[in-house]
Amino acid sequence: MKKRIVIALGGNALGDTLEEQMIAVKSTAKAIVDLIEEGDEVIISHGNGPQVGMINSAMTEFHKTNMKYSICPMSVCVAMSQGYIGYDLQNAIREELLNRNINKGVATIITQVEVDERDKAFENPTKPIGAFMTKKEADSIVKEGKKVIEDSGRGYRRVIASPKPIRIVEIETIKALIENNQVVIACGGGGIPVISKGNHLKGVGAVVDKDYASAVLAKEINADCLVILTAVEKVAINFGKKDEQWLNEVNVNEMKLFLKSGYFAPGSMKPKVEAAIEFVESRKDRYSIITLLEKAKEGILGKTGTRIVNFSTKVKAD
Amino acid sequence: MKKRIVIALGGNALGDTLEEQMIAVKSTAKAIVDLIEEGDEVIISHGNGPQVGMINSAMTEFHKTNMKYSICPMSVCVAMSQGYIGYDLQNAIREELLNRNINKGVATIITQVEVDERDKAFENPTKPIGAFMTKKEADSIVKEGKKVIEDSGRGYRRVIASPKPIRIVEIETIKALIENNQVVIACGGGGIPVISKGNHLKGVGAVVDKDYASAVLAKEINADCLVILTAVEKVAINFGKKDEQWLNEVNVNEMKLFLKSGYFAPGSMKPKVEAAIEFVESRKDRYSIITLLEKAKEGILGKTGTRIVNFSTKVKAD
Repeated sequence: MKKRIVIALGGNALGDTLEEQMIAVKSTAKAIVDLIEEGDEVIISHGNGPQVGMINSAMTEFHKTNMKYSICPMSVCVAMSQGYIGYDLQNAIREELLNRNINKGVATIITQVEVDERDKAFENPTKPIGAFMTKKEADSIVKEGKKVIEDSGRGYRRVIASPKPIRIVEIETIKALIENNQVVIACGGGGIPVISKGNHLKGVGAVVDKDYASAVLAKEINADCLVILTAVEKVAINFGKKDEQWLNEVNVNEMKLFLKSGYFAPGSMKPKVEAAIEFVESRKDRYSIITLLEKAKEGILGKTGTRIVNFSTKVKAD
Repeated sequence: MKKRIVIALGGNALGDTLEEQMIAVKSTAKAIVDLIEEGDEVIISHGNGPQVGMINSAMTEFHKTNMKYSICPMSVCVAMSQGYIGYDLQNAIREELLNRNINKGVATIITQVEVDERDKAFENPTKPIGAFMTKKEADSIVKEGKKVIEDSGRGYRRVIASPKPIRIVEIETIKALIENNQVVIACGGGGIPVISKGNHLKGVGAVVDKDYASAVLAKEINADCLVILTAVEKVAINFGKKDEQWLNEVNVNEMKLFLKSGYFAPGSMKPKVEAAIEFVESRKDRYSIITLLEKAKEGILGKTGTRIVNFSTKVKAD
C-alpha cells in the first residue's frame, strides 16, 4: 500500500562544501528514488548547518568591507541556503528519476516556519552553526555580541537560538504538489524562522531544528512515516559504553522513558528521538525510523534501523 | 473574464540592498495584489542583477580567505538569489493578500532554465552584473579572467554571458500550483541557467535575461498577457530626442520594424520589446504591456503603458 513518507536528511547527505554537496546528493538521490520506486510518496526536508554557516560567514565578512550592505540576518541566510541546497538536490533527484524512467516533477519550496517569540530558546542559544573556530576566532566573534560554545574538544562554534516550530507557513503549497504527484523538498534547514505580527511575518535570528520541523511537516501533510536519516544505523542506549544496546523496534512510551533517563545527547540524537516521538504519538498508526541514508529502504521494509511505534499497533487491533 | 498574467518585475521593484528590498516589496506586493483582486491569475518573475552581484561578490571574497570553499559558480549564486528574493517577495504578497481578506497560497519555486551550450552568447558576454567598480577594481578582476565593460560613463561592471532560454525545467510544478489557485514566483533572475547532458542538468556561468525567460514562461503556462514592469510608463521611440514619441498601442509587426531600426537600447528596452514580441506572436489573442510597476493595473485595463498586440485582434474578427 502506498505510504506518505517524510525523509529528514542529515548533514552527511549533503556534504560541507559545494563539491562535496554535488557528490553527496547523487547517493542521496539514489536512496530517495529507491523509496519512490516502491510507490511511496516522498517529501524531503534537510539540515543546513555547514551551508548556512558558510553563507552567514561570507555575508558577514562581505559587510565588513562593503558597508552599503548590512549584516545578512540568519533568516535570510536560511532562505539562501534553501536555494543553494534545493537546486543541487532537486537536480540530482530529477536525474535519478529519469535514469529509472520515472516521470515526476521535483520542486524546492522556499519554506517559512513560524515560531513563538516567547519561546525560551531565545534566552538561551544552544544550536551550533558554521565551521569550527580556534579560540582566537571565537573570542573575536564573542566581542561582536555572538554566543560561542566549546564543542566536545573539537573546537569552538557559534551558537544561536533554536526555537520550536509551530507551523509550516507554505503548507498548502506543499500539499498541492504532493497531491499532484510531485517530489517536494521543503523546510530546508528547518525552515526560515519567522514570528507572526498580525498579518506580517518577521524573520528572526534563529535556526529551527530540522528534525522538529520535519515532525511538524509530517503531521501537517498527514504522513504515515517519518524517516530521520543520520550517521548511525540504529539508535543506541548507553552509547559507547560496555552495556551499549542498539534499538530495533521500540514503543513510543518506552522511548520516552529512555529519553527521560538522559540516554540521548542534546543537539545530536535527542532532537531526533523527540521529533520521532512527537510524530508517532500524533496518530496511532504512525511510525518513525531512525537509520543511515543508505539503509533508508531497508529501514522502511523493517529490516534495519530503529523503529519507533505506538504500543497499540503491536498489541491491540481496535 | 479571468486572465492568466505573467508579471516580470524589474530591478526597481526589489531595491539593491536587503533594507531597500524589504521596503520595495511592500509596494510591489500592492501592485500585484491589485491584479489578483481583479480576479486574474498572476505568476511573477523577477530580475536579480544587484542581488546576484552582491551574493557573487560575497562568495568570491569569502573563497579568497577560506580556500576550503571554491568560488561559487554563477548558477549557484542565482539559486541563492531566488531564495533571498523569493522569501521577502512571497512574504509581502502573502501579507497584502491577508490584509485584503484574500485566501491564497504564495510560493517561490527554485527554477532552472535550460539554455543551449552552443548559444553564441557564451562567446561574447554582454550582461552586466553586480555593483559598479572603479578602474582599479575592474583591472583586478580582469586579471582573474573575467570580462568587464565601461558602462555609459557610470563606471565599470563585470559582464557575463546571457544565453537565450529554451525551456523552464520546473514548468509542471509551476502549472500545478497555478491550477491550485496559488500565486507563484518563478524564474527568479531569469532562472538558474543549465545545459542538458543526457538526463543530467549542468549549471553554467551565465545569467538568463529575465524578460526572455518570462516570455518562455508565459508561453509554456499558456498565459494571456505578459506584463513587463520597468522604470518608464511607456516605451518611446527616439527616446530623449526632439521627435521623441511615446507608444500606446502598437501592433507586433510595427514593433518589429521599430526594433529593426535600432530604436531600443540593448540591455535596457531592447530585451523587453523582444520578449514582448516573442510572446505576442505566439498566439493571436495574446498581448503584452510594458509600463511602470505602479501603473500595472491601469496598464492591464488599457489606460496607460505600451501595449503590444497582434494586428488581427484590432482589425479582423475571425
